[in-house]
Amino acid sequence: MANFHRAAAIVIGDEILSVKVRDTNGPFLIDRFRARGIHLDRILVVRDDVEEIAWAVGACRGRYAPIVTSGGIGPTHDDLTVEGVARGMGKAVVIHPELEARVRAHYGASMPPEALRLARVPEGATLLQTSETWFPVIRVEEIYLLPGIPKLFELHVAAIADRYQGAPFHLRCVYLSAGETAIASVLDRIARDHPAVALGSYPRMGDAPYRVKLTLEARAAEPVEKALADLLGRLDPGVVLEVE
Amino acid sequence: MANFHRAAAIVIGDEILSVKVRDTNGPFLIDRFRARGIHLDRILVVRDDVEEIAWAVGACRGRYAPIVTSGGIGPTHDDLTVEGVARGMGKAVVIHPELEARVRAHYGASMPPEALRLARVPEGATLLQTSETWFPVIRVEEIYLLPGIPKLFELHVAAIADRYQGAPFHLRCVYLSAGETAIASVLDRIARDHPAVALGSYPRMGDAPYRVKLTLEARAAEPVEKALADLLGRLDPGVVLEVE
Repeated sequence: MANFHRAAAIVIGDEILSVKVRDTNGPFLIDRFRARGIHLDRILVVRDDVEEIAWAVGACRGRYAPIVTSGGIGPTHDDLTVEGVARGMGKAVVIHPELEARVRAHYGASMPPEALRLARVPEGATLLQTSETWFPVIRVEEIYLLPGIPKLFELHVAAIADRYQGAPFHLRCVYLSAGETAIASVLDRIARDHPAVALGSYPRMGDAPYRVKLTLEARAAEPVEKALADLLGRLDPGVVLEVE
Repeated sequence: MANFHRAAAIVIGDEILSVKVRDTNGPFLIDRFRARGIHLDRILVVRDDVEEIAWAVGACRGRYAPIVTSGGIGPTHDDLTVEGVARGMGKAVVIHPELEARVRAHYGASMPPEALRLARVPEGATLLQTSETWFPVIRVEEIYLLPGIPKLFELHVAAIADRYQGAPFHLRCVYLSAGETAIASVLDRIARDHPAVALGSYPRMGDAPYRVKLTLEARAAEPVEKALADLLGRLDPGVVLEVE
């Protein structure tokens, strides 16, 4: 089990960037990874373009793990993820013999020649069979190439998350009737005195019954509870609507 | 009116990357920009972190315009967008005198000192008053700093889009009962013979009444119609379910 907890996602597809399709894979990944203690640090959404994919891979490789790509896996002209990932890593694109065998078995005698594009991988890639789908996840170093179709994407994510289990997150929330500016100096103090705790401040507009939601979060419960007690001791009790 | 059509968005916020809040600003931006002929090329979602924001700005500056940031504008410790954008551009953070005057007028005599953080801008920034909200958009070069709160974000986007009007997009769609592999060679040919047309191929799973949706798109109608006619001439008519 790799000792990494900070992940990145590269979402590939003109259809996402033109809102023909709304990306649900990014939020799904955040949610599932989070349940395993893996924090998604970056989501890069890029076009179906080899240079763009290569840029995104270069910007994340070696800094995040796992790196999950979504989309651009398939037999058509706009499926460029394998080529883009390979270029971003300075690797060649090669035919993976076992994957070729699977593709041939899947299509049988009626296989069109374009189907063999599905057997291309960045050099050095291995296959990860994560579910009942016939097509495996292509893995190269800490990068996992997943199809963009949400149903397939979701099938594969759990198995990847299993390999990178981290400590769970502890989260407390405080809802306030005061605005951000009024509490900014208290937040400064809490952020400075409790550096192990991620302190978030989110203003709400319109209909919400509170004005600001604060979040306190860390990988252990104790520092979160300490920061929460300190915070509540410094806030005017009249502005605290709810603690959860 | 600037002669740019390719935009980028930088979405800033730990709350997005932990799905405490689902990003709606990215999709909103795609949609509104698209209606004005501006294509969003990249969406980079990063943490509330000065280095991360600076990295994203450096990766987009000079290549895309407009560049819109979402989030991290406010008076609290986790509002780091001004500092991150400044660092990414190699600029200092300075107090903008007119913005300071607006902040003082807004808060009046009861202004806490932290409110003055709202008057900080990257050096060389100008203010863009785009709506009825008292707080303006901070603009520096082609980068526009917008608040993450969707209601405020949306109020500001239209005015930015007005400055970058491009030619509209023409889109045709073809729905097929065939799978991607079977039509890959036809798509190769269309993509090669009609390079001015963006040809997309999107497989559907499950309940959809088609197997593949094709999209043909360009900034002028004529090349799209030519590519569509060519495509329909090369596909088996039996697999074409609908053209729209």
